[in-house]
Amino acid sequence: MGVFLPCLQNIFGVLFFIRLAWIVGTAGIVQAFCIVLMCCCVTFLTSISLSAIATNGVVSVGGPYYMISRNLGPELGGAVGILFYLGTTIAASMYITGAVEIFLVVNKFALPVVLAVVFCIACTFVGIFLKFNGTDSLRFCMVGERPVSLVNIEEKFKYVPNCTADGLQPVFCPESNGSTTQCDPYFQKVLLNRKWAIKEKNAIPGLSSGMFFENLWSKYRHFGDVLTKGNEKKEPRAEKDSFWVFADTASSFMILVGVFFPSVTGIMAGSNRSGNLHDASRSIPIGTLSAQIISSIVYLAGAVLFGSSVAEMFIRDKFGQSAMGRLVIAELAVPFPMVILIGCFLSTVGAGMQSLTGAPRLLQAIAADDIVPFLRKFQKIDSRGEPILAILLTLAICECGILIAVIENITALITQFFLMCYLGVNAACALQSIMKAPGWRPSFRYFHWTLSMFGAFLCIAVMFISAWYFALVAIFIGAGVYKYIEYAGAEKEWGDGLKGLTLSAARFALLNVDSSGQQHSRNWRPQLLVLYPDSGPMAGPRSSHIEDNQRGLLSFVAQLKAGKGLTLITECIAGNYSEMAVEAEKHRGVLYHQLRKHRIRGFCDVLVSEDHMHGISCLIQTSGLGGLRHNSVLVPWPDDWSMSKSFENASNFVNTVRCVAAAKCATLVPKNIHMFPASGEKITGNIDVWWVVHDGGLLMLLPFLLRKHKTWKNTKLRLFTIASIADNSLDMQKDLEKFLYQLRIEAQVFVIEMPEAEITAYTYERTMKMEERSKLLKEMHIVKKDSDIQAAMDEAITARKISKIHEDDLRKFSLSKSQEEEEDSETAKEVGNKVRFSENSVEISRPTIEETESKTNHAPLSQMMKQEQYNVSKMHTAVTLNGLMKEKLDNTQLIIINLPGPPTIGTDTYYMEFIDALTEGLNRVLLVRGTGTEVVTIYS
Amino acid sequence: MGVFLPCLQNIFGVLFFIRLAWIVGTAGIVQAFCIVLMCCCVTFLTSISLSAIATNGVVSVGGPYYMISRNLGPELGGAVGILFYLGTTIAASMYITGAVEIFLVVNKFALPVVLAVVFCIACTFVGIFLKFNGTDSLRFCMVGERPVSLVNIEEKFKYVPNCTADGLQPVFCPESNGSTTQCDPYFQKVLLNRKWAIKEKNAIPGLSSGMFFENLWSKYRHFGDVLTKGNEKKEPRAEKDSFWVFADTASSFMILVGVFFPSVTGIMAGSNRSGNLHDASRSIPIGTLSAQIISSIVYLAGAVLFGSSVAEMFIRDKFGQSAMGRLVIAELAVPFPMVILIGCFLSTVGAGMQSLTGAPRLLQAIAADDIVPFLRKFQKIDSRGEPILAILLTLAICECGILIAVIENITALITQFFLMCYLGVNAACALQSIMKAPGWRPSFRYFHWTLSMFGAFLCIAVMFISAWYFALVAIFIGAGVYKYIEYAGAEKEWGDGLKGLTLSAARFALLNVDSSGQQHSRNWRPQLLVLYPDSGPMAGPRSSHIEDNQRGLLSFVAQLKAGKGLTLITECIAGNYSEMAVEAEKHRGVLYHQLRKHRIRGFCDVLVSEDHMHGISCLIQTSGLGGLRHNSVLVPWPDDWSMSKSFENASNFVNTVRCVAAAKCATLVPKNIHMFPASGEKITGNIDVWWVVHDGGLLMLLPFLLRKHKTWKNTKLRLFTIASIADNSLDMQKDLEKFLYQLRIEAQVFVIEMPEAEITAYTYERTMKMEERSKLLKEMHIVKKDSDIQAAMDEAITARKISKIHEDDLRKFSLSKSQEEEEDSETAKEVGNKVRFSENSVEISRPTIEETESKTNHAPLSQMMKQEQYNVSKMHTAVTLNGLMKEKLDNTQLIIINLPGPPTIGTDTYYMEFIDALTEGLNRVLLVRGTGTEVVTIYS
Repeated sequence: MGVFLPCLQNIFGVLFFIRLAWIVGTAGIVQAFCIVLMCCCVTFLTSISLSAIATNGVVSVGGPYYMISRNLGPELGGAVGILFYLGTTIAASMYITGAVEIFLVVNKFALPVVLAVVFCIACTFVGIFLKFNGTDSLRFCMVGERPVSLVNIEEKFKYVPNCTADGLQPVFCPESNGSTTQCDPYFQKVLLNRKWAIKEKNAIPGLSSGMFFENLWSKYRHFGDVLTKGNEKKEPRAEKDSFWVFADTASSFMILVGVFFPSVTGIMAGSNRSGNLHDASRSIPIGTLSAQIISSIVYLAGAVLFGSSVAEMFIRDKFGQSAMGRLVIAELAVPFPMVILIGCFLSTVGAGMQSLTGAPRLLQAIAADDIVPFLRKFQKIDSRGEPILAILLTLAICECGILIAVIENITALITQFFLMCYLGVNAACALQSIMKAPGWRPSFRYFHWTLSMFGAFLCIAVMFISAWYFALVAIFIGAGVYKYIEYAGAEKEWGDGLKGLTLSAARFALLNVDSSGQQHSRNWRPQLLVLYPDSGPMAGPRSSHIEDNQRGLLSFVAQLKAGKGLTLITECIAGNYSEMAVEAEKHRGVLYHQLRKHRIRGFCDVLVSEDHMHGISCLIQTSGLGGLRHNSVLVPWPDDWSMSKSFENASNFVNTVRCVAAAKCATLVPKNIHMFPASGEKITGNIDVWWVVHDGGLLMLLPFLLRKHKTWKNTKLRLFTIASIADNSLDMQKDLEKFLYQLRIEAQVFVIEMPEAEITAYTYERTMKMEERSKLLKEMHIVKKDSDIQAAMDEAITARKISKIHEDDLRKFSLSKSQEEEEDSETAKEVGNKVRFSENSVEISRPTIEETESKTNHAPLSQMMKQEQYNVSKMHTAVTLNGLMKEKLDNTQLIIINLPGPPTIGTDTYYMEFIDALTEGLNRVLLVRGTGTEVVTIYS
Repeated sequence: MGVFLPCLQNIFGVLFFIRLAWIVGTAGIVQAFCIVLMCCCVTFLTSISLSAIATNGVVSVGGPYYMISRNLGPELGGAVGILFYLGTTIAASMYITGAVEIFLVVNKFALPVVLAVVFCIACTFVGIFLKFNGTDSLRFCMVGERPVSLVNIEEKFKYVPNCTADGLQPVFCPESNGSTTQCDPYFQKVLLNRKWAIKEKNAIPGLSSGMFFENLWSKYRHFGDVLTKGNEKKEPRAEKDSFWVFADTASSFMILVGVFFPSVTGIMAGSNRSGNLHDASRSIPIGTLSAQIISSIVYLAGAVLFGSSVAEMFIRDKFGQSAMGRLVIAELAVPFPMVILIGCFLSTVGAGMQSLTGAPRLLQAIAADDIVPFLRKFQKIDSRGEPILAILLTLAICECGILIAVIENITALITQFFLMCYLGVNAACALQSIMKAPGWRPSFRYFHWTLSMFGAFLCIAVMFISAWYFALVAIFIGAGVYKYIEYAGAEKEWGDGLKGLTLSAARFALLNVDSSGQQHSRNWRPQLLVLYPDSGPMAGPRSSHIEDNQRGLLSFVAQLKAGKGLTLITECIAGNYSEMAVEAEKHRGVLYHQLRKHRIRGFCDVLVSEDHMHGISCLIQTSGLGGLRHNSVLVPWPDDWSMSKSFENASNFVNTVRCVAAAKCATLVPKNIHMFPASGEKITGNIDVWWVVHDGGLLMLLPFLLRKHKTWKNTKLRLFTIASIADNSLDMQKDLEKFLYQLRIEAQVFVIEMPEAEITAYTYERTMKMEERSKLLKEMHIVKKDSDIQAAMDEAITARKISKIHEDDLRKFSLSKSQEEEEDSETAKEVGNKVRFSENSVEISRPTIEETESKTNHAPLSQMMKQEQYNVSKMHTAVTLNGLMKEKLDNTQLIIINLPGPPTIGTDTYYMEFIDALTEGLNRVLLVRGTGTEVVTIYS
């Protein structure tokens, strides 16, 4: 009852008595039924959502605000709550003009008032059936096909004329200019025409009259249209002082929805009182739903019965002007009209008081949660538990509402406020049902997310249908409050359903990406796994060298952020996890702090492992999740190696590179990382890319991404490639420049010519095979120039062909054997005429024939024996390249060059020595080894 | 030029000549300017987006279709492309009624046509300035304040009357009924009134006339309103055969936007020809933008100048009826009107042909991509490269368009189609800019995602403003095509920008969750890490026992899916990763297949590790990412242990449990996992929960989640708790039942009484301390019953207090010492009077005093010595509990009981023996150990 009565009281507003009949007359019974049904649907679905939310845990004071804020977070709850408060308050101001003084007695007054209203409605229905054959008590005046506005006539002439030709003659045919009598044209027509008459008609012919069929269809009118049975389009518009009854507003389905909706906004009134209820979880669903269903039935029945009982021309007369302003519903009811008038009055006063007691409590509840700082002072309650300041504010707002004249606009606006609130309730229920958090266990079971979703959709529809501008205003206000609470409000510990949503969304997105398999190169971005150097025990002193390295590493990672990919910083510390869990947590904290400091948006992870190498292997294997997995690993060059030259250091590094290769990730090895610029610095000069192997374009992409960061913005990109004198280096340069233009990467191209004698075959082979490249470029020309349709059809195939050629390039010039081994066994068989780089790579393979021979030498044993022999030439190549790089230095800030693939058998120190020789005397070097999938294409 | 001319031609449609003036007259110069500006804004912003997309890589045939499909995926591209095709084709049908036969010569014809149109426009502007003082060449007929429709008069009377009182008298005062002359009331009024005259007026008073101010404001009209200078609201509506000029449609800002928009839909015409261009990337931006800017300027200037030159009453006369249908713009131009008429005609024909040649190529491009199966046959081209079938279809659709009468509706619909296309272009540009994929490198730099976003927003706004129903139709058709392509179309290798988006969204969501720290218990859900048993080498034979276990494990995980949390299945296999990468990939494949088979939506991961225990530790530490991290670990009971009783087996299991505890995750240990039901089975009976320790409610939550799955749906939940005889077990039962009601979990509660003598103090202590619980419940009552406002204010604090009490519970009844040690050192000091469970737990601690004594015995050495002594009593407790559980069996399908915390020092076999004793002879047992954070609260 504590919920049922307030709900019922609020739902049965005065509109039932004074507007429903007119709505039926204008929209027709069918459409009026639809209007009422639609509005009732909104509230019915909202009631269901409300019931589900209310039965999912204890409900305290604050009603819908409490529920939404505890379910969808304080921001949304606060926004909706404040809108609801405003709506309730302003609604009160409309209800209770002049009845403020008695509101303190409302709680005891509620029952009698609602009983009176229910009694009135009962009287009306009884009256409809008792007056089955109509009644003569109410008659209205018709001239021909038009009702006459007796009210307007009385206003002007100060008497009510008889509804006869004689009586109305002086009104419609006034003497103008002395004696010329000019009649109203329509009045004259009626007088002349025998078919039409001037007479009083019965306003209530009763159910038996068949009025149902006359009122069935809609008769929407524009503003100023004169009411008539005939074709209104032919008639002139009525002027303001016309004596005909005319439409005072335009009407349409949408407009009438807006007019009717406030009748049903009362369903939250019961849950508003949640703080006063013994078992809110049980009372709210029962009370709200039963009140909603009963009132829906009453409204729907009312719409049909009014339409069947009242005369067509009179039901459309909004203010009953043709019967001196008498209320048709009052006449319809038994025993006498005064009953309904009192009912109307009581209903208004009751609903107003209900609103006026509910609103301050709601405000106090919002204030008490302290989510809106400037509401803080309304937390105060007096000794009797009344929120006195909140009451005063509510009264003030209410008074303002009364004083502002444009009541119509305010009605439209508060409708929107209520609808926003309903939207919130429906959305909360739908979201929670979809997310299925284990905490979502409402005892009320008769809900489904589709219903709530539909309810939410209906709310939006009604908002925009009834008045889209006010809908925008309401949304704007709501969004403003939301942002304000988000900005100023305290974090609340009651959790946030929306956060759960983001988590669910992340999980869903990842699952979807996962199942779709391999990503396209269009979407390729460097997803970095950074192997962060171990900081050592938290308690002990920190090595400044390690700290420099860490700083340089993080700066470099931060500067790569234009890739917008995943960044995972991982640290592997030595120890037993069960014992070191707290220490690991501290490391994570420090690491997280470092990330924040360097403005890196990424994840950090700390692994405690007894064996360092083993830990690194695990990190490379299992970091990331689903589609969010790293595709590139940043391995800092081991500085220790340069000092110790120990086998262990070399082995750890090379094993890491091996692991990365096995995981099919790209490897980035920055050397002298402590010398890399901090993110605050700004650097000018060049980035030199030594494009020795075409391995998918990562070498071109990295400087492109780096240069998006302000530190590297002012650097220029220089691309070096090596050709023998036999190559036409000018053509080669032109082709490369064009290729770069189509890649949309700006770079200066240098083709370094070296005398045949000086280039070892190895160097030559490693360089891009220019004939192949020219062919590729020419094919591109064909696609562009040949404008016939076939080109378009072949385009997809061509794209594939090109990437195939990229792969071929890659395979032909691959530095290492292991790189070939990465490819699946099928392609691995195609190895053919290749040159090896790592342990046996520096065999100076003379063209094709010798290569085929060298292939027979692959067996590990023979490799081992040839090791020493090749070592010298290998070093020679490294030194030659190193010399070239040094020669071309020109304010070079960073050199990017291919990293050779790791050796398969453990001659790791040679590998390290080779890299040392290659990069000796250079400041910042980034060694890069791609996997062939990071394609930079001219498409996309 | 290849882009510029088609664009210009399409933009300068016939509307410039025949509608712009009327739009200016009706909307007023100010609003007309806004209308034109708004439409031009849409196309301008779209041009910018288009330029950015066009310069991001090579553009082939297909224009906007090609760009959207390559950027946002084939589905969206296809949907938009087909709409665009339909739009273009139907537009053509409107343009070229009667001009089909010459369309094959269009490409050579294009230049002269567009030049002619440009010439016409130039003539118009020159004319406006030359006729600065107006011209007498065009006069229209006014009667009083109303223009007269000479066209209608001529139609009826077959002659054009003079525009004088005498001339018009026979028209407006026809003789009716023999000799009675009845005049049109307005005509009569004009005749009588001296102020008004009947005369011809000058339609083009020129710029000097100050018409600008008369035309400045809007004069929107309803359908049928008679045009007049006076107040039209007073006038009756015109009938169909009225001789007054009246509005043939309603007008409003929105409607006029819809009328004008088709004028500017030509901007894609240039990019449509992308296949024929030499360097599309360069031509499209330059051509489109310059055409767009020039035509915008022309339209805007035209709006202002027309408004300033043409007489107010005539500019509002849509069809020039009051001047016998003559075209005002034609009269305005130099040297003579015929120039403009020819221009109009050429413009129409030219645009039509442009559309008719563009559309088939677009269709062929879509068909060639093979994304829409039923379009496959339109791939065909003839020997000259013309898509002959596509041309035929286009002509057929075009003819249909011509034959269908309701051209107006079609116009409105194609406007929507074009807008959808623009929306696609803008959205593609905005998305790519926001995602910043490294592949997004347009050479055109003058774009920004806010502009594109605003453009997309404007598109939607214009769509709904101009005709929301058609907007819905267009969206519906588009969505249909999208779904069809998604369903039927082949996967394309050109990638999908939207997939990149989901990945970005996942990353963004995870980063946000991560930074917000700990999750609230409202959103707590079991995020499972499943330690999947190693299947052994892929090549060798599989153990059927292991397979049974794997099957049972996955079924159980699948049945827990109601938790809707993360599910991570991980397998740790032995070996070296660099060598085993391929093997690991195969394992992952098998695992993924198993997941699909068991309908588990989750992630799987395989780790190759040389040391099994080490691998498990890594998995527990680093699985998951950011906020998507496991909070529960499912560790299958080692069956090997039961057979071998080896220390290694015990140690591995206990170490795993230790690791899980260190990672602050909950532990779930299913025993006899091979006996768990498959997901297809349906089980009836009971789930018995032995609620010995109140550790956050995971024991209650798990059966709740299980019972959401159909396998467990028909089981009933029984909750057992143990009390001494001294407790009032009836009260206890009632309190517990009420508590469960508020938790919204249905269960039958059993309080097992045991004689004091039989209960070891250990058992008693472990049971919930009933006084504490009653106090908790009573506090809840206070919150509920005390309705004063303070309660609401304290509510948040109370919630905290309750969870605090939960913690206290936990601490008081914790089974193990290690559990205490997990808590931070601060609370660990409060340990006080506690009982230990694991290695030293079964000391039968007599109340407080003895306990304090026992505390002094904590040192590891003394523990070790006491080990044997306690072992007996420990086993006794296990056996007692085991006996109780067996006694209460009643069709019990699953027993859920607390898992004791792991021992801190390596007496792991005792721990295993204890659990064996506890669960001996029971079929399906789930041992659960929570962490205290999985709170099931009465709130939420």
